[in-house]
Amino acid sequence: MRFDEAYSGNVFIKSHPNYEESQAVLYGMPMDWTVSYRPGSRFGPTRIREVSIGLEEYSAYLDRELEDVKYFDAGDIPLPFGNPQKSLDLIEEYIDQLLAEGKFPLGMGGEHLVSWPVIKAMYKKYPDLVIIHMDAHTDLRTDYEGEPLSHSTPIRKAAELIGPSNVYSFGIRSGMKEEFEWAKEVGMHIYKFDVHKPLMEVLPKLAGRPVYVTIDIDVLDPAHAPGTGTVDAGGITSRELLASIHEIARSNVNVVGADLVEVAPIYDPSEQTANTASKLIREMILGFVK
Amino acid sequence: MRFDEAYSGNVFIKSHPNYEESQAVLYGMPMDWTVSYRPGSRFGPTRIREVSIGLEEYSAYLDRELEDVKYFDAGDIPLPFGNPQKSLDLIEEYIDQLLAEGKFPLGMGGEHLVSWPVIKAMYKKYPDLVIIHMDAHTDLRTDYEGEPLSHSTPIRKAAELIGPSNVYSFGIRSGMKEEFEWAKEVGMHIYKFDVHKPLMEVLPKLAGRPVYVTIDIDVLDPAHAPGTGTVDAGGITSRELLASIHEIARSNVNVVGADLVEVAPIYDPSEQTANTASKLIREMILGFVK
Amino acid sequence: MRFDEAYSGNVFIKSHPNYEESQAVLYGMPMDWTVSYRPGSRFGPTRIREVSIGLEEYSAYLDRELEDVKYFDAGDIPLPFGNPQKSLDLIEEYIDQLLAEGKFPLGMGGEHLVSWPVIKAMYKKYPDLVIIHMDAHTDLRTDYEGEPLSHSTPIRKAAELIGPSNVYSFGIRSGMKEEFEWAKEVGMHIYKFDVHKPLMEVLPKLAGRPVYVTIDIDVLDPAHAPGTGTVDAGGITSRELLASIHEIARSNVNVVGADLVEVAPIYDPSEQTANTASKLIREMILGFVK
Amino acid sequence: MRFDEAYSGNVFIKSHPNYEESQAVLYGMPMDWTVSYRPGSRFGPTRIREVSIGLEEYSAYLDRELEDVKYFDAGDIPLPFGNPQKSLDLIEEYIDQLLAEGKFPLGMGGEHLVSWPVIKAMYKKYPDLVIIHMDAHTDLRTDYEGEPLSHSTPIRKAAELIGPSNVYSFGIRSGMKEEFEWAKEVGMHIYKFDVHKPLMEVLPKLAGRPVYVTIDIDVLDPAHAPGTGTVDAGGITSRELLASIHEIARSNVNVVGADLVEVAPIYDPSEQTANTASKLIREMILGFVK
Amino acid sequence: MRFDEAYSGNVFIKSHPNYEESQAVLYGMPMDWTVSYRPGSRFGPTRIREVSIGLEEYSAYLDRELEDVKYFDAGDIPLPFGNPQKSLDLIEEYIDQLLAEGKFPLGMGGEHLVSWPVIKAMYKKYPDLVIIHMDAHTDLRTDYEGEPLSHSTPIRKAAELIGPSNVYSFGIRSGMKEEFEWAKEVGMHIYKFDVHKPLMEVLPKLAGRPVYVTIDIDVLDPAHAPGTGTVDAGGITSRELLASIHEIARSNVNVVGADLVEVAPIYDPSEQTANTASKLIREMILGFVK
Amino acid sequence: MRFDEAYSGNVFIKSHPNYEESQAVLYGMPMDWTVSYRPGSRFGPTRIREVSIGLEEYSAYLDRELEDVKYFDAGDIPLPFGNPQKSLDLIEEYIDQLLAEGKFPLGMGGEHLVSWPVIKAMYKKYPDLVIIHMDAHTDLRTDYEGEPLSHSTPIRKAAELIGPSNVYSFGIRSGMKEEFEWAKEVGMHIYKFDVHKPLMEVLPKLAGRPVYVTIDIDVLDPAHAPGTGTVDAGGITSRELLASIHEIARSNVNVVGADLVEVAPIYDPSEQTANTASKLIREMILGFVK
Repeated sequence: MRFDEAYSGNVFIKSHPNYEESQAVLYGMPMDWTVSYRPGSRFGPTRIREVSIGLEEYSAYLDRELEDVKYFDAGDIPLPFGNPQKSLDLIEEYIDQLLAEGKFPLGMGGEHLVSWPVIKAMYKKYPDLVIIHMDAHTDLRTDYEGEPLSHSTPIRKAAELIGPSNVYSFGIRSGMKEEFEWAKEVGMHIYKFDVHKPLMEVLPKLAGRPVYVTIDIDVLDPAHAPGTGTVDAGGITSRELLASIHEIARSNVNVVGADLVEVAPIYDPSEQTANTASKLIREMILGFVK
Repeated sequence: MRFDEAYSGNVFIKSHPNYEESQAVLYGMPMDWTVSYRPGSRFGPTRIREVSIGLEEYSAYLDRELEDVKYFDAGDIPLPFGNPQKSLDLIEEYIDQLLAEGKFPLGMGGEHLVSWPVIKAMYKKYPDLVIIHMDAHTDLRTDYEGEPLSHSTPIRKAAELIGPSNVYSFGIRSGMKEEFEWAKEVGMHIYKFDVHKPLMEVLPKLAGRPVYVTIDIDVLDPAHAPGTGTVDAGGITSRELLASIHEIARSNVNVVGADLVEVAPIYDPSEQTANTASKLIREMILGFVK
Repeated sequence: MRFDEAYSGNVFIKSHPNYEESQAVLYGMPMDWTVSYRPGSRFGPTRIREVSIGLEEYSAYLDRELEDVKYFDAGDIPLPFGNPQKSLDLIEEYIDQLLAEGKFPLGMGGEHLVSWPVIKAMYKKYPDLVIIHMDAHTDLRTDYEGEPLSHSTPIRKAAELIGPSNVYSFGIRSGMKEEFEWAKEVGMHIYKFDVHKPLMEVLPKLAGRPVYVTIDIDVLDPAHAPGTGTVDAGGITSRELLASIHEIARSNVNVVGADLVEVAPIYDPSEQTANTASKLIREMILGFVK
Repeated sequence: MRFDEAYSGNVFIKSHPNYEESQAVLYGMPMDWTVSYRPGSRFGPTRIREVSIGLEEYSAYLDRELEDVKYFDAGDIPLPFGNPQKSLDLIEEYIDQLLAEGKFPLGMGGEHLVSWPVIKAMYKKYPDLVIIHMDAHTDLRTDYEGEPLSHSTPIRKAAELIGPSNVYSFGIRSGMKEEFEWAKEVGMHIYKFDVHKPLMEVLPKLAGRPVYVTIDIDVLDPAHAPGTGTVDAGGITSRELLASIHEIARSNVNVVGADLVEVAPIYDPSEQTANTASKLIREMILGFVK
Repeated sequence: MRFDEAYSGNVFIKSHPNYEESQAVLYGMPMDWTVSYRPGSRFGPTRIREVSIGLEEYSAYLDRELEDVKYFDAGDIPLPFGNPQKSLDLIEEYIDQLLAEGKFPLGMGGEHLVSWPVIKAMYKKYPDLVIIHMDAHTDLRTDYEGEPLSHSTPIRKAAELIGPSNVYSFGIRSGMKEEFEWAKEVGMHIYKFDVHKPLMEVLPKLAGRPVYVTIDIDVLDPAHAPGTGTVDAGGITSRELLASIHEIARSNVNVVGADLVEVAPIYDPSEQTANTASKLIREMILGFVK
Repeated sequence: MRFDEAYSGNVFIKSHPNYEESQAVLYGMPMDWTVSYRPGSRFGPTRIREVSIGLEEYSAYLDRELEDVKYFDAGDIPLPFGNPQKSLDLIEEYIDQLLAEGKFPLGMGGEHLVSWPVIKAMYKKYPDLVIIHMDAHTDLRTDYEGEPLSHSTPIRKAAELIGPSNVYSFGIRSGMKEEFEWAKEVGMHIYKFDVHKPLMEVLPKLAGRPVYVTIDIDVLDPAHAPGTGTVDAGGITSRELLASIHEIARSNVNVVGADLVEVAPIYDPSEQTANTASKLIREMILGFVK
């Protein structure tokens, strides 16, 4: 019984109680206001934490335990409903502070647009930044029906900021023709349909580089992740996604931050997507935070 | 078989094929970007239309049939995802045009904030406008955590525009203390918990006045409308809500427009809320469009 | 941003950060191992807290705000899976400590058997204890198919401990013939089907007495609380249950503790039961903790 | 352990093992092929039996136990998928045999059209037959878009067979204008919206008459029975329906058979409708089988 | 805003407004009255169209856009509920007319029996017709418990009409022993379990032949298509099914018509099956309509 | 029509009516009281039987029909709710009797702890017993937070009883570090992630040995079995699991009993897991009972 201090309920399993001592910080970005199809990812971080109680603390893949890593679950960043610009500004400030204090940022979305301010902050610290992006969708639009702040645009914005040749997208199976053409023109790297195989080829070339890994849960086939805004048939298995995370973990790249976005619990009646996401977060903690 | 013209699929049952000849226009306002709790009402209008095929065309309450009224289902107003201000502007323009062309506007939300631009447009045409508002919530906030464009604010904005004493809220059971106090101070009319009984007292006083009726589906108890963003126990039955609509229909007020908002299909696995909403729309058409 | 202290995530809205300063303590009893029908109430407390973010902090019924009461959400009592006796012992010890420290105990189940050790603890402190019990079921069995530790027995155990004439059950609509006969014989008070009306008659007789209020959510009709283990048609509305809580709050009895049990989120796809339960908890805090 | 005889699994709770000795026979009619909206009631009888294990065997309303009545659950009548006429013929033969052997027939649908052959069989034995019909819908069509075998026609067929003045419909809130007009013309009795109150007026007039009771679960409001094909807002509560069954049970009419139809489990994620239906079946057994 | 013409709501994304100018016609066959297990596919076409708004208009597989093909979504063929023979006759007439007017027919079921009248119509125009059939089930029964019009019979009827050696079934994993034996005897081609690999061997042999492609969504594993009447474990992935469609698209066969059947939305709470089906329809349009 | 004998409803399809004549007995063990995460597997056996009506009776994999095997579905063993020890004792006695009477035991869980008393009984008859265990989890704990009777312990208990080197676990992807270390130390065989490939290597070494096969449905990926207590991403497909069962069936080991556990219907809204489980049971009957 713990009566004499604040109860700490819904945090990811084995979260470290002390921010200062932690290497990494886990945080939620509960924003879904620009999605063009099915909203609901604002509740992703809460549900991922909730189901994390069903996880083992040990990874049979990486032979490492959660207590080997000090990470602090800081909860959700409070974001103003229906105000995309202000939300993005708040996220950027938040990451600025985390980076200034030497923490490894590990974010949970929310819609994919939340990755954009994170990447902006990362790039200020790591001018040589590389992005590894796993997703069903290109996310390379300049705008969605006139709106530049849209969940279909973050990788475009990122590519224009850090240079298209520093962006590697994997598992892509949907997008506008123009997006694929733009990527080709400017030298951005798109690997269609597969993740693990092209990743194995790419990773050696990135040795030593600072890498930000952004994973849209819909890179998984709908069979493996029905609980997301925009399901898209023909995706990879959770087994391939786990193997891909492990491939990065064992490579010589320098992972400096990561996120997992677009988990929408209301489309997940069996909670399988949330459970899968919580396992992915565990593997990202164990694999990326050295 | 109809090969030689455009197929008209998802419209409300018995929608008239011709806009010009129609007295009333039914339209969707698929916006849910400012909600502070559970989004999803953007899909409300589509689902309400879809299940309308299960409706009888005759009302045993009003002894009137849908073919006795000419109404045109104009579909959803295309609204920019994640941009509240522009969405509201588009709705206002839309209603301006409907009113200019002499149509009775009957809207389906979407979140409750969509009623605000409609009321603005109505007020331009009807300076003597009265609002009958049925809802679980006061919706009288000035802002939500700093955001003035929020689904918790439309009745406040309306009351300030048309004069608080012209606004009658029924069935209210939730709100901030400040909201109730403000209403009292400025002379706005709030009837807590009940709808039908206070309505019977109020209606005679409004005889001859132009009235806009705005119904948030959550005025119903969660038992009767689980499929909405913010369910709130202790509400009225669908039977009381039907009786209230009929009470207005039979009164001497001049209903000049109406809406039904906040149906969120994803929280409605049995589709009962959508079915109930489609019956309410039928009764609003048959009762309000003379 | 709060980096320098433990994040306190999943607590009931407006929970006070400090145990010592609090008048009341809210705690979960996540046990469902003896239920004879549908399990799942172990997740009730977590989900009730989660959805409490959708609540207003003000009660329009009682004209009181949550910040007027200091209550501390202590989280769930860790209970050993599949071991009823040890679980009950842990709960009793927990309540003993709460009472020794002068706190008002407000519990969330879990199955109804969790009320039994709470009542044992209450009775040690209040030998004149009265129980107000709202439920669809008598819960007066001596055992369930030979098992004395069963969710169908807590009121029997309580009645035998504190004297049957000190137990008042309301809203009962199901039980074995023998249970009703036993109650009659020993002078226990069972009011069938209704809650509010008989309660109004009973309360004046209990003026000044210490009262423990135990509410099984299934006293509500399945329409109002589908998310519970044993739904039973013919129940009361959430409106009647709210009114009954308010009736107690305004009476002259001395409420010394309370619980709300049997919320099972997995049978609650729209989360309506959890939302209703969280509103009931708010009203119990505002009405019972003086 | 029972190794030496056939296992009898999915039967209604407390079903008597022996057909010959039984007064009543419970049977399923798993047909849903003519429904015009949402199919799925073919699985109603199986699910109603399955959840009956959650029932108490005693009725606190009628003070009677299931073991006081000998009824045999004969399982579902095997009906040919997609062949309405042959299905109806098989049902009629089945009931003919039951009646010849002096059994009280208690049926579970399936769609409402299954009541038609039952009524035909009843009428052969009871030329003075009266029908008490509880439903949201008139079911008085001659055909549905040209098909005379439709779930919207059984009461029309019945009224034409046994004489419209012998048919009493309660709770009706939907139908075509023509249906209401026909009923009026021919002297059929339709009581709109309510069940219990008009029933109390009607029952004394039917004293001593043989009565067949047919209940469409959708007479209940969707709040009380979401799991049905055609939900229709504005219905009665399960409490009113229970009271109505009890009113008949205590009256002087001679109930000679009954059915409960249109439970569709797939629209019933919380199983509340199935649980309610199983309680209704229990009360029909205890109330109607003398 | 479009006020002056009929609103065209629920059509597949990018449907061409004009029938005459279109090469292909998309139509629904909302019939499910003969299914022996779980009904509900009548709502398949509507839901597939509804979710098509979430699709990209470009195929990253075929490098082709929807606006490169003129196809007209003609809506659902109105079919009489519960009357299989008349329904099949109406479908056959409908296809006769489409073919007479030179349109490519692309159908959405509904149960698989709807393919039978389509194939009859196709065969009248293409006496050299070949059928490529992807399914979990043989569908080679002569009847289902005596009913010759059953969803388990269409391929048998087709094989007997066009000659068994012209029918190629892929992915089959369920059927009666007699069905497999019959196929073997008469020279029909059944490829068990796999689709893509045997298809690559078969396609070259069919070069230049007119081919009708009929896909039962249950050829997919239940993981990839839970929303269907008869799920059957051990199926292929959506990735393999997409690849198979593309294999046909790139081959030298002459696809003259196609359908996708058995999507049942009510068994698809996350809408993943409907979303997958809508992507398959897009690929069939882009791949088959030249 | 079958009026003169007990109706035998919910049994697995083609269950033999006579126990004495049967080679195998199918039985349910509806216990879930020790699970540490999501309960609900008590309803697994009932639902598996219910959906078995959708199965074909012939296996296209094994070319064998259900009527070729005499198996008797004995229903569920009645187990006392919330009393693990007594439940396990009852199961052990039950299996003792089955084995004494020469029956092949085929069990359906319930939680995995139910396999422990079965294995105890098997070991008494077969001292040379080998266990083939397919699961996501090691299940090698000595206790769960102090409770030795837990669903996380059965394989540990079994390994200690029959000797760790006689236990082969496949598909394992989760467990505590200590569990993997213990297995290694004592010579238990754990094959991580895969099932079919290592099984092909192991089976020849077990030729002639008596083997008990215990399958936790969560060895499947959540995509293939969402309806279970503890889903864990990265699992095998239903196709691999089917192939593994067939591999055992075709090998030279002597399968002497088997079970399939942890199907939890409430997490299975599309019933895909139950349907898959019923197919697995069919293949286990056809493959294991010679």
